[in-house]
Amino acid sequence: MHRAYHTLRWEGDALGTLYLIDQTLLPEQFTEINAATVEDVWHAIRQLSVRGAPAIGVAAAWGAVLGTQQCRDSSRAEFDSRQREVSDYLAGSRPTAVNLSWALQRLQRIAESDADATAAQMHQRLFEEAALIQLEDEQMCDRIGRHGAELLESGTGVLTHCNAGSLATAGNGTALSVIFSAKAAGKQLHVYADETRPLLQGARLTAWELQQRDVEVTVICDNMAAQVMKEGRIQAVVTGADRIAANGDVANKIGTYGVALLARAHGIPFYVAAPSSTFDLVLATGNEIPIEQRADTEVTHGFGRQTVPAGVDVYNPAFDVTPAPLIDAIITERGVVHRPETQSVCRHLG
Amino acid sequence: MHRAYHTLRWEGDALGTLYLIDQTLLPEQFTEINAATVEDVWHAIRQLSVRGAPAIGVAAAWGAVLGTQQCRDSSRAEFDSRQREVSDYLAGSRPTAVNLSWALQRLQRIAESDADATAAQMHQRLFEEAALIQLEDEQMCDRIGRHGAELLESGTGVLTHCNAGSLATAGNGTALSVIFSAKAAGKQLHVYADETRPLLQGARLTAWELQQRDVEVTVICDNMAAQVMKEGRIQAVVTGADRIAANGDVANKIGTYGVALLARAHGIPFYVAAPSSTFDLVLATGNEIPIEQRADTEVTHGFGRQTVPAGVDVYNPAFDVTPAPLIDAIITERGVVHRPETQSVCRHLG
Repeated sequence: MHRAYHTLRWEGDALGTLYLIDQTLLPEQFTEINAATVEDVWHAIRQLSVRGAPAIGVAAAWGAVLGTQQCRDSSRAEFDSRQREVSDYLAGSRPTAVNLSWALQRLQRIAESDADATAAQMHQRLFEEAALIQLEDEQMCDRIGRHGAELLESGTGVLTHCNAGSLATAGNGTALSVIFSAKAAGKQLHVYADETRPLLQGARLTAWELQQRDVEVTVICDNMAAQVMKEGRIQAVVTGADRIAANGDVANKIGTYGVALLARAHGIPFYVAAPSSTFDLVLATGNEIPIEQRADTEVTHGFGRQTVPAGVDVYNPAFDVTPAPLIDAIITERGVVHRPETQSVCRHLG
Repeated sequence: MHRAYHTLRWEGDALGTLYLIDQTLLPEQFTEINAATVEDVWHAIRQLSVRGAPAIGVAAAWGAVLGTQQCRDSSRAEFDSRQREVSDYLAGSRPTAVNLSWALQRLQRIAESDADATAAQMHQRLFEEAALIQLEDEQMCDRIGRHGAELLESGTGVLTHCNAGSLATAGNGTALSVIFSAKAAGKQLHVYADETRPLLQGARLTAWELQQRDVEVTVICDNMAAQVMKEGRIQAVVTGADRIAANGDVANKIGTYGVALLARAHGIPFYVAAPSSTFDLVLATGNEIPIEQRADTEVTHGFGRQTVPAGVDVYNPAFDVTPAPLIDAIITERGVVHRPETQSVCRHLG
């Protein structure tokens, strides 16, 4: 059963509510959460019902709108106080997500911009800013898709890792937007989705979205990528990114670095698709990117059953860093950086 | 709780019974199956309670002993007929396992060797041959271990893939025998075990046996191997083999080829440990080795939960082939073949 779906959708005017796909239940169940309060949004982010840096930012913006609805008839002082309280509260839902604080700061600046506006007027502006954040995210995805699609020829087999799709953004995604754009331009593609242990975002989410949109997709276990490449099934790899250093080193879901090495060994181009806001120019190289370690249970009890003996040590880094020399191009909403290094990255970002 | 365990153990004389660890229940439960009939052995092999080519061969030999116990007082004609029936029956439990038919043929040759012996005498000889097959397997493991241990220095981090351990043989295993021997020789090792999707033999079985024997072990998801190598944690890779071509190309569990490429990219030696009977000299190169495809459900419903959307295509090759140029050495019970190619392999096998 294929359907049009929206990772996030607001229904109504400034007094409306937010609907979110509960991604923890995919692919077995398609269920939308109706988030009518800021607490609902906080829990949806915390429990990974909504995930992916861009999508989290948009969700947080709508959460701030929801959290200030009941103060529309209050004084500005009361409204501003509530706005700050809601912003702090949402920022704590997933402290490491850069886009979360970025979106909340945008709303904060609006709230501080006009002391003469009434609470109702200010709430309306916050609502409009949240809608703008969502719209900009959708447009960013479309632009990434258009730039990236030019790199893919018809008949291409594309390997992707994790989920950098519409479920991670308010729009068509980043890596998957490239695929959707190429398909919309009439190109025939076949996508191989790494299942992406430990949390299986590739198997659960990427496969689901590609199926919804009638893109041919085959799921493989992560350790099958080399064999699939050797068999000549892959002509390009496209992944997303969580953070990119000034020299083009890319932090992304664990396993990305290995895929990049395998692609290089088979002469297959390796592309990264991400908004330009993913660049963190404070970091000269990827060596400075801290690698988050996550809970052992993601590995030991990943599938509903214990698969590692009790007491055995587990190593569970959530990300790895792919050095820029393994990356053939980085695709952003501004265009394509071929053979990224510090100079070409700086030129790209202006 | 650590314990001495036996993957397979026969209790009693020719009228005794076989005990097998039920490997499908590891690591959550340690349970032995008491196989008192040939049907019990057939089901144990079929259901993967016992797995690993050498272990399957030994189990089948004991199965043939069990299946002919009730004909010890029969005529030789009746005994021989039953012996052939039992052999055919066991051969069908897992038709692709080379060691299964190899062990059954050894017993068949014994059964055809002395027409004058009584049924009871012949049954005793089958019992002794089965015991010999098990003993030879144990000795083969020990020799592989001793030869391989010389390749590992103390302080080495060793990556292994799948399970080529005592649970796959009647003895100490192949790849893991190298580790047990090195440890017995006083070397400090730390093993990283790839969990090995889809059936997780690394997480479930390799981690379990290393824990039982007090070898330091850390389980990682398959897609973390590159990162673990990059962090300098690995100085050697040791895996088993399912079949080796005359030129040294190695068929082994899916993912082995990718690990070999990653090892090469990081300058880490890649070793294969296997009995010399694993060589199939009929095959000039690994290109002639057929790659078995297994059921989608191993990927889609790995461990109790659906993780791939219904209707999505899955690719599930059970093996891959690592080209000989990526292999630094093949370790057999006869010694070590460095930089394997057709000439060095032929010399090694005499």
